[in-house]
Amino acid sequence: MPAFSIGVDLGGTNLRIAAVSTEGQLLEKISVASNLSLSPDHVVAQMCDDIRHLGAKNRDSAEFVGVGVGVPGIVDVEAGVMRKAANLPGWENYPARAQIERRLRGCALFENEPRVILENDARAAGLGEQWIGAARGVPHLAMLTLGTGIGGCIILNGRIWRGLNGLAGEFGHLTVEPDGIPCGCGNRGCSERYASASALVRMAREAIAGGAAPALAQVASSQPEFGAKEIYQLVLQNDEPSRRIFCSFGRYLGILLADLVNILNLEMFVIGGGVASAWNAFAPKMFEELGTRSIIYAASARQHGLHGDERQRAASQGKTIITRAVLGGDAGLYGAARLAQITG
Amino acid sequence: MPAFSIGVDLGGTNLRIAAVSTEGQLLEKISVASNLSLSPDHVVAQMCDDIRHLGAKNRDSAEFVGVGVGVPGIVDVEAGVMRKAANLPGWENYPARAQIERRLRGCALFENEPRVILENDARAAGLGEQWIGAARGVPHLAMLTLGTGIGGCIILNGRIWRGLNGLAGEFGHLTVEPDGIPCGCGNRGCSERYASASALVRMAREAIAGGAAPALAQVASSQPEFGAKEIYQLVLQNDEPSRRIFCSFGRYLGILLADLVNILNLEMFVIGGGVASAWNAFAPKMFEELGTRSIIYAASARQHGLHGDERQRAASQGKTIITRAVLGGDAGLYGAARLAQITG
Repeated sequence: MPAFSIGVDLGGTNLRIAAVSTEGQLLEKISVASNLSLSPDHVVAQMCDDIRHLGAKNRDSAEFVGVGVGVPGIVDVEAGVMRKAANLPGWENYPARAQIERRLRGCALFENEPRVILENDARAAGLGEQWIGAARGVPHLAMLTLGTGIGGCIILNGRIWRGLNGLAGEFGHLTVEPDGIPCGCGNRGCSERYASASALVRMAREAIAGGAAPALAQVASSQPEFGAKEIYQLVLQNDEPSRRIFCSFGRYLGILLADLVNILNLEMFVIGGGVASAWNAFAPKMFEELGTRSIIYAASARQHGLHGDERQRAASQGKTIITRAVLGGDAGLYGAARLAQITG
Repeated sequence: MPAFSIGVDLGGTNLRIAAVSTEGQLLEKISVASNLSLSPDHVVAQMCDDIRHLGAKNRDSAEFVGVGVGVPGIVDVEAGVMRKAANLPGWENYPARAQIERRLRGCALFENEPRVILENDARAAGLGEQWIGAARGVPHLAMLTLGTGIGGCIILNGRIWRGLNGLAGEFGHLTVEPDGIPCGCGNRGCSERYASASALVRMAREAIAGGAAPALAQVASSQPEFGAKEIYQLVLQNDEPSRRIFCSFGRYLGILLADLVNILNLEMFVIGGGVASAWNAFAPKMFEELGTRSIIYAASARQHGLHGDERQRAASQGKTIITRAVLGGDAGLYGAARLAQITG
């Protein structure tokens, strides 16, 4: 009998719940808008209704193996609690896992007590890409998720490397400018102040304030939602100030990647998250920096844009691969489902 | 019957060969000055004579298990060759391991073909500290060796993490100043340009040229060997320009450590190498930077200067430990011997 798990991705925008087979096949997905004004208890109640629903629909044709939940913020995996939840008001130190398990008690899916795994969404995304995405079959890799901030995930020997406090992979808080812009974490010059969606908007607003970015100023004042996507649209229209902003973004992303390559010398680095869609705008500068700043990357000849067998061959030849994620917004959902399948 | 191995530490200054028991006891050590004008073949011949000598003296009382050799530079462990050997002229791409094995052929120590392990000396030092030094019993750690440059070693689950090309742990080439001083590796602003013995000398020479460092100028002109030790002596005499130099050193070392903590979230970071002796001059600033720049370090309460059981307890309580190495110049020698014991 085939088997399946249920993955949950709770984001600031959407709550998504999916039944995924152990072969990586999406059986069914439910997506609803996240209502941030609801209490965590309400969100958990809705989530658990959907879990029961998907479970009941699939359990006759496949064996149920568990539930994994990805959430944005710093997660204490052992305790099943978010320690920082900047994008989910009310969830900080809320006993999320225990409440989900409580709500699932008595559900026919579970033979004994329900067991749920709570994990950071960027880590779930890394696991998803390693399972059925860009890094399929690659044992050692890191994934960078470029969104409002920078999420990180290190996978060694096919398993998430969590570290002493379960906090490994905070790539967004590497210092890329020692006297740079203050960050909420207490540091200055963190990489996510220079190479994230919010960094792009900051640079755009600075360019507009400087008076030499008329196209950016026009779009910023006319579009209610001015963000990374709008700036990228201007790059596609050959707007020079917008191009320079992505060039700076690529430079700092290159510095961050070079540091990671020099420390870990992994087979593959996967770049995902919403801003990864603007790959063509930042990748050339990113690769340029990487080639100059990482002796290891330069030594292990540059390869990018490879697919399938080509990619495998490059890794087997000792080449560091920097590549785009392929699962898009579903990486975290697949990864959360996978977590439930591989965690005993 | 007890067992022993032979460790070799080939440095730019000394060639040391030691017989070390599997319990970590030093049975005998031979130390000779490195004669850099000799060809690698000559050095290998001398090394192998000493290996045979130490082997013959100890093999009646203990079982011989192998030879490990630590060398300064970038080592291709699989090939047994140094790819970069800035401090050992003539050794670049010299087939060191094959030549050592050839010279040991027919030696009564080996039942079959002699097998030798060649490894980077900073990695050997990390393994030595993990075996019987500051990180005894700690499964996951990194070691930074502060010398002319910065050597690095990552140990995960008790084993050296080498990475795809065997080059992981290049901590000396992390970017700490994006537009900083050019480095031989091709990058700018590498950490070893700011937090190594050579960085201290550079800063001292700049202070002297600036005309506001009379004590440094006096020592530099009167001492034939002007280096980290002489600058540290001036700190102990309350020389303000020398103090500022070590403060800058501590700042950049703190940035480097914060990056490593944020990426890997390891139990322990061990600081070794010659410059570690000036701990009191740089550690306060290093800890200050670390506390500001690493949200993980700050969260996992600061602990330093702990010993023995205290240290173990701190790690079990989830605290990141930054500590000095304890084996001094012998760390690499012990680690080389250990490599031969644990590599199958």
